[in-house]
Amino acid sequence: MKMTDKSKNPIFVKLGGSLITEKNAPYTINYRALTQIVKELKEAIERDPQLQLLLGHGGGSFPHPVADSFKTAEGFVHATSVRGFALCQNAASTLNRIVVDLMADYAIDAISIQPSACCVTTDGKIANFFTKPIEVAIAEGLVPVVFGDCVFDTVKGCSIVSTEQIFSYLSGALQPSRVLVVGLVDGVYTADPQKSENARFVPTIEVEQFGSVESYLGESYSVDVTGGMTTKVKELVEIAKRGIECEILSGASGNIKKALAGQKGIGTRIKPVATAEK
Amino acid sequence: MKMTDKSKNPIFVKLGGSLITEKNAPYTINYRALTQIVKELKEAIERDPQLQLLLGHGGGSFPHPVADSFKTAEGFVHATSVRGFALCQNAASTLNRIVVDLMADYAIDAISIQPSACCVTTDGKIANFFTKPIEVAIAEGLVPVVFGDCVFDTVKGCSIVSTEQIFSYLSGALQPSRVLVVGLVDGVYTADPQKSENARFVPTIEVEQFGSVESYLGESYSVDVTGGMTTKVKELVEIAKRGIECEILSGASGNIKKALAGQKGIGTRIKPVATAEK
Repeated sequence: MKMTDKSKNPIFVKLGGSLITEKNAPYTINYRALTQIVKELKEAIERDPQLQLLLGHGGGSFPHPVADSFKTAEGFVHATSVRGFALCQNAASTLNRIVVDLMADYAIDAISIQPSACCVTTDGKIANFFTKPIEVAIAEGLVPVVFGDCVFDTVKGCSIVSTEQIFSYLSGALQPSRVLVVGLVDGVYTADPQKSENARFVPTIEVEQFGSVESYLGESYSVDVTGGMTTKVKELVEIAKRGIECEILSGASGNIKKALAGQKGIGTRIKPVATAEK
Repeated sequence: MKMTDKSKNPIFVKLGGSLITEKNAPYTINYRALTQIVKELKEAIERDPQLQLLLGHGGGSFPHPVADSFKTAEGFVHATSVRGFALCQNAASTLNRIVVDLMADYAIDAISIQPSACCVTTDGKIANFFTKPIEVAIAEGLVPVVFGDCVFDTVKGCSIVSTEQIFSYLSGALQPSRVLVVGLVDGVYTADPQKSENARFVPTIEVEQFGSVESYLGESYSVDVTGGMTTKVKELVEIAKRGIECEILSGASGNIKKALAGQKGIGTRIKPVATAEK
């Protein structure tokens, strides 16, 4: 087995479920958006063959309607919870198959990693994670692809983990150089920019300011089972506290390629204290 | 979380890759066979709602042609080994998706468990296996579905694990009441029945006789990357040594349903010493 190239740490990239699926049409991918992103990922790898990536994606219109209907995040508490878990796991893995298959078609050496198969939570928080396959995959130049999934839980029976939670957990062992969270919107706003004319773009969030950031974010404008923007920012703040810069940006054409080439500030930077600019 | 019903132990059922796929047509399932089997599994669960199952399936014409071409079982030793691993993992997971999706359609609460995400080998033997999700799934009444897969290996970089290896490993912790290996042929013969008129059916293999069984099995008549019939029998003998009866039988209509209803001797029984009939 080859050793990890310690000179380069991986970049974590999350593709939002609302970006790669049609959020209002159950079980429907946004093929144009997904294809454009996969091409950009391939171009970034071609540009820098040493690039190490961990990819993640949300569930969007695949598992979310099922998880909502069956209240999967609440645990095995309803008569239909077990059925719901099975359907939710299938929907999440089906979307993952589409994503990874397309990556393989574009000659990216991607592999699926099902969180439900390697991760267990305790009351919704990741408690055990068999990370060896992910670590070896990245070291070997493969691109593991995780995703928001339903998982077993030692307290509730089952729960839901988001890609952000997975990234937060893995950032300890894998020490990513950056974390990119790519979605539909340009970054973080003070309110939902589609609903409020007064919404102001937030270019930078510094970790110690988070208390106030949370208050001026207003109500989450994309509520899903893994939480909306506020929850995402909270998870990324946890990562930034480890000294890792995160960025929330849109998947508009060229953004992922530019970000993977080193450009910062395309969206909202969530910066650790150590590198904060005054 | 509910506790496992200790009065009933799970039954492990493997569906052979040659049974559920068209072995001579790459990436092609045998839809008729697979549908018939899924219906029988559903009928068995309807008959006995307490039935606990762990399902497994071979790769057949999905990952095997890729694994052969890229010599995936040899490890990360060739220039294209990483690419081959990615393609092999994709092919195996794609077949698994088809199997589990069909089970979900027939109202079986099945979930995928990717061995590549939760299992690591050392020189081809399973060394680490994060079994918690499988254990909880079975206890909750879900049907986890594992499969022959490429996995990471601490010596060679990567390797291949068969469903039989997975069953053998899991039989320690999960103590199945029986292990059924369902394929194209009726059971074990002294030679390939499709090639030799002198092939005799072997109704029973007792563990202590294995030395001689191995010699009279003749050459394996279905060579694939996870080994042919001889390898399968060897793995099942390891399970039988733990006091667990195994049976190799064909997937002909009705067989799985009958076997899950308790019938024995449909194919070749591989019996532990303790229950051996004289």
